[in-house]
Amino acid sequence: MMSTLPLTLTLTLTLTLTMNELNAASPQQALAHLDGVYEHSTWIAEAALLQRPFKNLAHLKRALVDVVRGARIEQQLQLLRAHPELAGKALLAKSLTAESSNEQSLSGLTHCSADELAVIQKLNAAYNAKFGWPFLLAVRGPRGLGMTRGEIIATLQRRLAGHPDFELAECLRNIHRIAEIRLNDKFGVVPTLGNTVWDWCESLAQHSDPEYKANGQLTVTYLTQAHRACSDQLGFWMRECGFDEVSVDAVGNVVGVYFGQDSRARRLLTGSHFDTVRNAGKYDGRLGILVPMLCVRELKAQDKRLPFGIEVVGFSEEEGQRYKATFLGSGALIGQFDSAWLDQQDAIGVTMRSAMLQAGLKVDDIAAITRHAANYLGFVEVHIEQGPVLNALDLPLGVVTSINGSVRYVGEVIGMASHAGTTPMSTRRDAATAVAELALFMERRAASVPEVVATMGMLSVPGGSMNVVPGKCQFSLDIRATTNAARDECAADVLAELQAICGRRGVSFTLEQTMSAAAAPSNPTWQAHWERAVAALGLPVFTLPSGAGHDAMKLHEVMPQAMLFMRGGNSGVSHNPLETITADDAQLCVEAFQHLLNQLATELQ
Amino acid sequence: MMSTLPLTLTLTLTLTLTMNELNAASPQQALAHLDGVYEHSTWIAEAALLQRPFKNLAHLKRALVDVVRGARIEQQLQLLRAHPELAGKALLAKSLTAESSNEQSLSGLTHCSADELAVIQKLNAAYNAKFGWPFLLAVRGPRGLGMTRGEIIATLQRRLAGHPDFELAECLRNIHRIAEIRLNDKFGVVPTLGNTVWDWCESLAQHSDPEYKANGQLTVTYLTQAHRACSDQLGFWMRECGFDEVSVDAVGNVVGVYFGQDSRARRLLTGSHFDTVRNAGKYDGRLGILVPMLCVRELKAQDKRLPFGIEVVGFSEEEGQRYKATFLGSGALIGQFDSAWLDQQDAIGVTMRSAMLQAGLKVDDIAAITRHAANYLGFVEVHIEQGPVLNALDLPLGVVTSINGSVRYVGEVIGMASHAGTTPMSTRRDAATAVAELALFMERRAASVPEVVATMGMLSVPGGSMNVVPGKCQFSLDIRATTNAARDECAADVLAELQAICGRRGVSFTLEQTMSAAAAPSNPTWQAHWERAVAALGLPVFTLPSGAGHDAMKLHEVMPQAMLFMRGGNSGVSHNPLETITADDAQLCVEAFQHLLNQLATELQ
Repeated sequence: MMSTLPLTLTLTLTLTLTMNELNAASPQQALAHLDGVYEHSTWIAEAALLQRPFKNLAHLKRALVDVVRGARIEQQLQLLRAHPELAGKALLAKSLTAESSNEQSLSGLTHCSADELAVIQKLNAAYNAKFGWPFLLAVRGPRGLGMTRGEIIATLQRRLAGHPDFELAECLRNIHRIAEIRLNDKFGVVPTLGNTVWDWCESLAQHSDPEYKANGQLTVTYLTQAHRACSDQLGFWMRECGFDEVSVDAVGNVVGVYFGQDSRARRLLTGSHFDTVRNAGKYDGRLGILVPMLCVRELKAQDKRLPFGIEVVGFSEEEGQRYKATFLGSGALIGQFDSAWLDQQDAIGVTMRSAMLQAGLKVDDIAAITRHAANYLGFVEVHIEQGPVLNALDLPLGVVTSINGSVRYVGEVIGMASHAGTTPMSTRRDAATAVAELALFMERRAASVPEVVATMGMLSVPGGSMNVVPGKCQFSLDIRATTNAARDECAADVLAELQAICGRRGVSFTLEQTMSAAAAPSNPTWQAHWERAVAALGLPVFTLPSGAGHDAMKLHEVMPQAMLFMRGGNSGVSHNPLETITADDAQLCVEAFQHLLNQLATELQ
Repeated sequence: MMSTLPLTLTLTLTLTLTMNELNAASPQQALAHLDGVYEHSTWIAEAALLQRPFKNLAHLKRALVDVVRGARIEQQLQLLRAHPELAGKALLAKSLTAESSNEQSLSGLTHCSADELAVIQKLNAAYNAKFGWPFLLAVRGPRGLGMTRGEIIATLQRRLAGHPDFELAECLRNIHRIAEIRLNDKFGVVPTLGNTVWDWCESLAQHSDPEYKANGQLTVTYLTQAHRACSDQLGFWMRECGFDEVSVDAVGNVVGVYFGQDSRARRLLTGSHFDTVRNAGKYDGRLGILVPMLCVRELKAQDKRLPFGIEVVGFSEEEGQRYKATFLGSGALIGQFDSAWLDQQDAIGVTMRSAMLQAGLKVDDIAAITRHAANYLGFVEVHIEQGPVLNALDLPLGVVTSINGSVRYVGEVIGMASHAGTTPMSTRRDAATAVAELALFMERRAASVPEVVATMGMLSVPGGSMNVVPGKCQFSLDIRATTNAARDECAADVLAELQAICGRRGVSFTLEQTMSAAAAPSNPTWQAHWERAVAALGLPVFTLPSGAGHDAMKLHEVMPQAMLFMRGGNSGVSHNPLETITADDAQLCVEAFQHLLNQLATELQ
């Protein structure tokens, strides 16, 4: 019998596993199935397997993640230290686990030049000296194909600057990503839909305004050549996917319609924007067009018609970069196109009217694109979170409760500049400490209520000197909440405190409101659709507000809406080239959208 | 009898009053004597007269000031509102009190052009609208000769920007100055010694480095042509005053010696610096040379010799403006000239060595100018306060308890920049609120101990945006105290708090100490000399630390020292052309110095 055992093990490594097999296996067998998923740390699989049976792979992944999340910090550190150094001696001596060796090889780390090796090893040493564990990175990357050595070195350099407790969490997240890919391999699972979304995003990002493209940056502003290339590309893909009608409307929105069983049936409206900020990420907006496009492609491939139509809109403008006309694309759908915008000039003096004319858009037809709510079931939008919440919780998806209302101010406290050595504490009129008090009050005030955030993003003593008590201090206030009432209450308290602080300190202030936007709470029925879809995938249902504004805010004014957020890596950084998603998360997002479509179909049958 | 009364009144207005007369007068007579000193507000004189007998005019002035200081704010406002508007309708209609009319006329306000009148009246209206009382200014100015209309308009513009409770205090201070001049007139008192000091300062300020002189600014840096002109002027005046020896030493200090009864007798060492910062005031440093010079002149005029010599040094360098060699002049007297300085270059590449050569200074003789403490009684220095304390307390003079020790740092907190809308309060790593906490802790910590001051003069979120949680925040710390121990305890607490805040908030920091200077507590015996001198003048004895560094810090290392501070107007602003003193304060300062000389003479006889 002893001689057959190695053979069996070899088979489990080369043949793909099924979830039924894992669920049915003996504890020892099951543990053997999961061997190598978490480096030299069988305690994780042991604890997770107690949760059997698993519904699906996403469920298993989550169970494993939960064990690590619940572990003591000593165990977490042990897990980190169980990993080999990247491109380290172990790699050269080929003494790694098969998985680790394979991953490092895919990234070309086995083929580093002497210089690259020297850089990586020096950074590794610095990293280990700073944090006390090896640098951990899922080197197979977001698409599973392997990162380049250049990307790895850049990441190592960036993360070396981080705070230890953040870096601990970031390493654990990378370990979960490593485990995810290893599990995919074991189960023979390929996130084909997610890969398509990822590849589409990559392909769309090839179009960038020339001065940015030259620097390898992504920037697509309203109606530039790159913008029109994106529009063409989206239209082309929509036709390929099998949409029944594909058109560009009077403001440049790309609109694809997939009819229901009856071509006159009411439609689900969905979509997001394809324009970008300057030096943008590749996923902001675009996911919300590509995910439903892919759902339509899958329906069409099965020749399946639903009892409702699907209308996917690629909004031409949301970011307000070329012209100050934020939400132009979605606004036009609810009749909010302001004709005064047409005379606005961009940085080089081109009016919007002339840009539209050049793009072949018919200004006179803008009013006609206003949608009538009666023709629609509602509006849904998929979007990258652009925040750290899902990433910190190791959750691929989250359901939005409300798009926050916001209000912004810029202000200045005016005290009296005086000599830092000769002015007693009791007679100072220090503008900076007055603002410091306000910053801390606002921080406490916002934190005291769920789902209110407030930020002093700008803070400066103009022309400050070490030995001068600040006579002036400039600041900004940005206050957001899931409801207008919560936002306004917070703002009122902050403003009252500013008044009180200034009164108490004998300083004065100026304050100017620069922006105010209403909150857009999700429609409860539609939010519940997303929650059921997420639950069906075997994922925990997690809800969160949207701190950023989205096209759904506009549609909110005329029809029920609800949004689904996808996790962003790199702490959810956005409006930044470091914005990132994984193909696996994109896969789950497509599946969630498909589930929502099925729910609606069932309801309407 | 009724007909003689007006005649008596006329006489008291035109004949000068004596303090004996005032002390002996009936309450009603005394009140009549003081009529018009405080505009339409006899309640002030009434209350002050209860303090009779007055020792001297300074005593009476203080008694009057004390009544106003102790009055309710309603009474103070009534006093402000009892004054006519400057260049107002009352002036044109000649319906003013005789005093007010005379003062406004001396300032040429009766001869304003139509344009000037329009400007003043517009500013007056804005001032009254903002504060609710007329603009109050002692238009006869610091020397009593009258301000120019341009100066009056500039002051009105500047003060219009102030905070109401500061402006209330500033108006009351101007009223006390108006009263001081009116009392001088009544008593026929002219502060001749103070006027001389004031005029000398004015005369010395004519020499300024050319690029500043062209803008009407005062800047005298080490060994420039303007600096050498000052040195020549001081030497010339010293000889005129009757010093026995006048010389320029190897680092450019101007040294005047007035022998004691025995030319070999031990000497009192005194003096201050005549170099300035860029765009300086006229009194910083120079008062400390001119006040003792004048005392020597008075002794020589009476042909009086004391049992000790007086050595007055005009230090050539204290401010470290042209070269980084602060306290060069006084440092050289204690053997602290660093020969490495000689190779330092100024902004246009001139080495100190070459500048000294050009000025005819003998570098090789520097070591020889080191003073031997055994030859001196001690060191005293008169200096403008350069702070708001005496001005706020309406005190002409203050006795220094210690020159503060100081320590400075620059630092940066590193958090994590993130989206202001999407980052929950609980997961932020906000660098700015961390620094805000530190600023407030430091403010409280410094205020909790007498005579410790701490300042965050520089504070900035570099590249901050309204909608980004600050990832970095830069700041400076400046901590000063009367003793090194108090300074170090405060610094240690602040640094520990920085560590604690950063630990709690999951952010990191860098901190670099850029400066540290030891405290120089006054010698108790010498401090007592100054206290007795101030008391003898009829002034309250008030002690305070010096927040700024002074030449006395250097002499402190080898001999007992104590300093006397003179009040600075304009809230004690210094290193600024608004730095100001009055001739009356300068008079008291000379008298205090004379008293100190008499005390020493009595002791040594």
